[in-house]
Amino acid sequence: MESQEPQVKNSPLMPLMYTNRVALKTILESGDGETGLVGTTVVVGGWVKSSKEVKKEPLPPPQSPPPAAADAFPAASHGTKDVTCVEILQSRIPFFRTIIRVLGGSASSPAVRQKLESLIPKPPPPSIFLLDINDGSCVSSLRVVIDSAIVPVSAGQILPTGTCILAQGVLGNPSALGKQTIELTVEKILHVGTVEQDKYPLSRKRLPLDSLRDYPHIRPRTTTVASVARIRNTLDFASHTFFQNRGFLHVQVPIMTTTDPEGFSEKFQVTTLLGETSKKESPIGVSDADGVSPETVKAAIQEKSSLVEQLKRSDSNREALAAAVQDLKKTNELAQQIETREKSKPVTAVKPDLVNFNADFFGRQIYLTVSGRLHLESYACALGHVYSFGPRFRADKTVSAKHVAEMWTVEAEMAFAQLEDAMKCAEDCFKFLCRWILDNCSEDMNFVSKRIDKTVAHRLEYMASSSYDRISYREAVEILSKVTDKAFETQLQWGVPLTDEHLSYLADDHYRRPVIIYDYPKAVKPFYVRLNDDGKTVAAFEMVVPKIGTVIIGSQNEERFDMLNARIKEFDLSKDQYEWYLDLRRHGTVKHSGLSLGFDLMVLLATGLTDVRDVIPFTRTHGKANN
Amino acid sequence: MESQEPQVKNSPLMPLMYTNRVALKTILESGDGETGLVGTTVVVGGWVKSSKEVKKEPLPPPQSPPPAAADAFPAASHGTKDVTCVEILQSRIPFFRTIIRVLGGSASSPAVRQKLESLIPKPPPPSIFLLDINDGSCVSSLRVVIDSAIVPVSAGQILPTGTCILAQGVLGNPSALGKQTIELTVEKILHVGTVEQDKYPLSRKRLPLDSLRDYPHIRPRTTTVASVARIRNTLDFASHTFFQNRGFLHVQVPIMTTTDPEGFSEKFQVTTLLGETSKKESPIGVSDADGVSPETVKAAIQEKSSLVEQLKRSDSNREALAAAVQDLKKTNELAQQIETREKSKPVTAVKPDLVNFNADFFGRQIYLTVSGRLHLESYACALGHVYSFGPRFRADKTVSAKHVAEMWTVEAEMAFAQLEDAMKCAEDCFKFLCRWILDNCSEDMNFVSKRIDKTVAHRLEYMASSSYDRISYREAVEILSKVTDKAFETQLQWGVPLTDEHLSYLADDHYRRPVIIYDYPKAVKPFYVRLNDDGKTVAAFEMVVPKIGTVIIGSQNEERFDMLNARIKEFDLSKDQYEWYLDLRRHGTVKHSGLSLGFDLMVLLATGLTDVRDVIPFTRTHGKANN
Repeated sequence: MESQEPQVKNSPLMPLMYTNRVALKTILESGDGETGLVGTTVVVGGWVKSSKEVKKEPLPPPQSPPPAAADAFPAASHGTKDVTCVEILQSRIPFFRTIIRVLGGSASSPAVRQKLESLIPKPPPPSIFLLDINDGSCVSSLRVVIDSAIVPVSAGQILPTGTCILAQGVLGNPSALGKQTIELTVEKILHVGTVEQDKYPLSRKRLPLDSLRDYPHIRPRTTTVASVARIRNTLDFASHTFFQNRGFLHVQVPIMTTTDPEGFSEKFQVTTLLGETSKKESPIGVSDADGVSPETVKAAIQEKSSLVEQLKRSDSNREALAAAVQDLKKTNELAQQIETREKSKPVTAVKPDLVNFNADFFGRQIYLTVSGRLHLESYACALGHVYSFGPRFRADKTVSAKHVAEMWTVEAEMAFAQLEDAMKCAEDCFKFLCRWILDNCSEDMNFVSKRIDKTVAHRLEYMASSSYDRISYREAVEILSKVTDKAFETQLQWGVPLTDEHLSYLADDHYRRPVIIYDYPKAVKPFYVRLNDDGKTVAAFEMVVPKIGTVIIGSQNEERFDMLNARIKEFDLSKDQYEWYLDLRRHGTVKHSGLSLGFDLMVLLATGLTDVRDVIPFTRTHGKANN
Repeated sequence: MESQEPQVKNSPLMPLMYTNRVALKTILESGDGETGLVGTTVVVGGWVKSSKEVKKEPLPPPQSPPPAAADAFPAASHGTKDVTCVEILQSRIPFFRTIIRVLGGSASSPAVRQKLESLIPKPPPPSIFLLDINDGSCVSSLRVVIDSAIVPVSAGQILPTGTCILAQGVLGNPSALGKQTIELTVEKILHVGTVEQDKYPLSRKRLPLDSLRDYPHIRPRTTTVASVARIRNTLDFASHTFFQNRGFLHVQVPIMTTTDPEGFSEKFQVTTLLGETSKKESPIGVSDADGVSPETVKAAIQEKSSLVEQLKRSDSNREALAAAVQDLKKTNELAQQIETREKSKPVTAVKPDLVNFNADFFGRQIYLTVSGRLHLESYACALGHVYSFGPRFRADKTVSAKHVAEMWTVEAEMAFAQLEDAMKCAEDCFKFLCRWILDNCSEDMNFVSKRIDKTVAHRLEYMASSSYDRISYREAVEILSKVTDKAFETQLQWGVPLTDEHLSYLADDHYRRPVIIYDYPKAVKPFYVRLNDDGKTVAAFEMVVPKIGTVIIGSQNEERFDMLNARIKEFDLSKDQYEWYLDLRRHGTVKHSGLSLGFDLMVLLATGLTDVRDVIPFTRTHGKANN
């Protein structure tokens, strides 16, 4: 149906820019019926979150021609929510009527006419459709009322969850008791985007978050993921605001890099040597198996089995159980197909030593960046305070709730700044973000507090206003070694990295608020961190937050040429790769410090969620990337 | 030297956050001598842009012990700018004095003492060092005055361009005539980062921008590149501000993707199959040749030859010429080394059909994203107005001033919006950015107007305030076919893409301002653009800007399932890859439109530069990626 999107003249509500609809947020946030919105004509658009149909008494068959929109929307509605054969027949009523008129006209007999009329289905009694639609501008939905006698549309078209609707109507006081404060009575439907109900993942209500991960392209239509997206957006802009307001310049560091900033993380290589396989199918028959790896299928089987078990236990939902069992069966079949194929397949690995990287796009090996801090240093050593905000990559195969292959990171670097400065900056930035979310996302914070974690707003408030302890790694080890009420899996002694359980004990149990740990043993931190005078520790820090773990890491980086050179040798790194980085010490070196903030972890903290796969729009993990 | 960075108490100037120095911007912007800054003690830090030494009358040899900093800075200075043997001897004066004192003490004879004294060089007469230092906070530099009689420091340490200095001193009226309005007399030097003058690329004054491209890590210390970085930062935040203020949510679309949004651009593949070669050297002897490809070396030879030619012509700078010739020789030698090596090398290419991508990290082939618009659609079809700002990649081997392998793009997508809405959004966004730069970057705009392009500010002003024509592709072809005063290389007829010279004619000559061209032939635009009712054209547009070319492209995307499906077949694309994208049409489809703004081109426009390699911090082009 062509949407004409008419200019609505008499609305006190401004339409959104670049569309003629009004954001639901503007209606619902002032929609207490006393703000003069009642009686206003507006255009709204959104997707159906829930719906019901209320039958009216049947009307006499229509004598007058149907209203203007009837060409596009058949003037029929009925009592079930599914599109059925009856409905299809009904949608042809005007056509049948024409036939009858023609036949009846020639036969001229009322009896024949009556007989013919009895052969076609009666138009269903008109209905009132009550739709709650949401457009993503806020948590709440707007109640939209459609009288099928006035606006001809069928239940099958309009009722399914996920249906898109653009409609013009009049705002009014709610017709029924409920939580609504305002509702819209539709005068004209401008667009309907229907749903293939049997294929739509959100047709079953309230899928758990981990099931939603299979539908990253659809899940922002759920209230929770939409709320997460808005909180994420707010934190994103807050991060820029924090640094911009403090005189930092944003620098876009390169994503493809030949320099490895750490020397100990797995990296993704970027190449044009492997070429593209033919478009129609991949070389090893992957296309039949839907392009998935054996690992993915194994993981899927595990997940789906546990869902089946869960549903069996709850036993409340027989349909869902049947569907899940069916789903599991299919996946098992897929696994067998893949196994058969795996056996008859060409050689697997490419030996890197046989590859001529001179022929690659850049004439050498190049990787996706793990951290932008080294490149950022180059700009800090010219412009002072700089920061970067972008994607960082690790080819880590372990599955974790806190780390995936592609994550966004805020990094800052400051010339003429030392370790304490970076720790202060980290604390300020963290508190700023906590406060900003509370001040700028109240509706979404209310929602996540209700739906996900009751204590989340309280915790943000507490963290924004309390002061954090700063302890050295040595002090941390001392505290942990005195712990008697808890046995740690990893026995701690000076020199070994602190594990998640150690960090959790310090932040969740001991301090019960964020804590900053600094001066780490040099072996557990990258080569570029500044060596302390004791020769054993380096000027690195981590900010550990209850429930989340390490959210910010930072360090004062080595500004002394000889020291840095020695560290590069100590780590057995290729000096060639770091010549440009050494240049920054050869020429006009300066003390400088910086930090990296795990942005996705910050979103976890603000939403009360516990797995980054639920807060990253399109998550990338080992064996999983489908779009 | 350890910097103690003392808290400066009596300064009306606030120090920067997370450092004790004051940003030079705050001094220089209020530094007319009448704002009460004279007499204020401040700490400043920065890098030497230019310097000179003024000799004072020789003083009698020091009787009192040197001031506190003398342990770290030898109390010696001399008349040349280079560090010489004399200077090294001089730097040992305290040591010689100790010997003399010891020897003299035991000998007890004034004659012996005098003889010994005559053996060591006399301390040089004290000097005044005048340094202009810059910290990247603004275009201007601060004149810093160091009297070597008061602050013991040597010329060789302090004078070279690029030296880093952190110093405390008192602000005062300028001691000499010149453009300075305020200067700093140093009381105490807190840190000096020296320069290896013979290796420092910026020791030669005013390298042309294309030579600076070889030193991306150093070039932000030049006034021009620093100014570009600040303008770039301002445009960056302005882009976020534009969309945030209009209710758009920022969505971080994935960088690694299995979906190809265009089907006709060269892509980078991401893999873990090729593994890492040993750290010490790459497999094919690349390490000796400094990890560069033959292509890079050839390009370097060409560039350096032309520099030599240029210097020969200008003949003003003999030293520079000698250095350039030496440099060219070295590169030639490198080229020969590489050629020898290339001949004795293992097999080159990897046949993709022999690679088992099931064993790759994601169990399938995956690429760096070319455009985020498809993923953005998924969020637009739930949240309404969304945008993204991130790096996009094309493995295009052609060298161009407007396109490199990694570029940042602003993309927006709007539900319930049509082609005209996206065109309006593009125009608004473009004008907003022009206006923002004029309003928020006046010092840098003055600089680039003076140094790079006199008309740049005027052009921005004109573009921010004029209205743009919108013409269809058909109209564009008509206009171009009537052109008689210019012969185009590519003869134009309906259906072929418009080339750069066509676009340039329209924007630079015909309209003399930005122009929007819409309704392109379907074959020249991606599959996802909405087919118009004529069946021949699609709802795409391009905004073409004088001097730059196409800065924004956009389109209304196909919302009709059957149409989109047909287009995927027409383009011979793998349907599997687009199933998730088709889902957005299967379930609750909506009319939607969006755009992509080439951010780096926007920076060109705002700075008056003509090559994106000069405005991207670390540029990636074919055969070139060294950090």
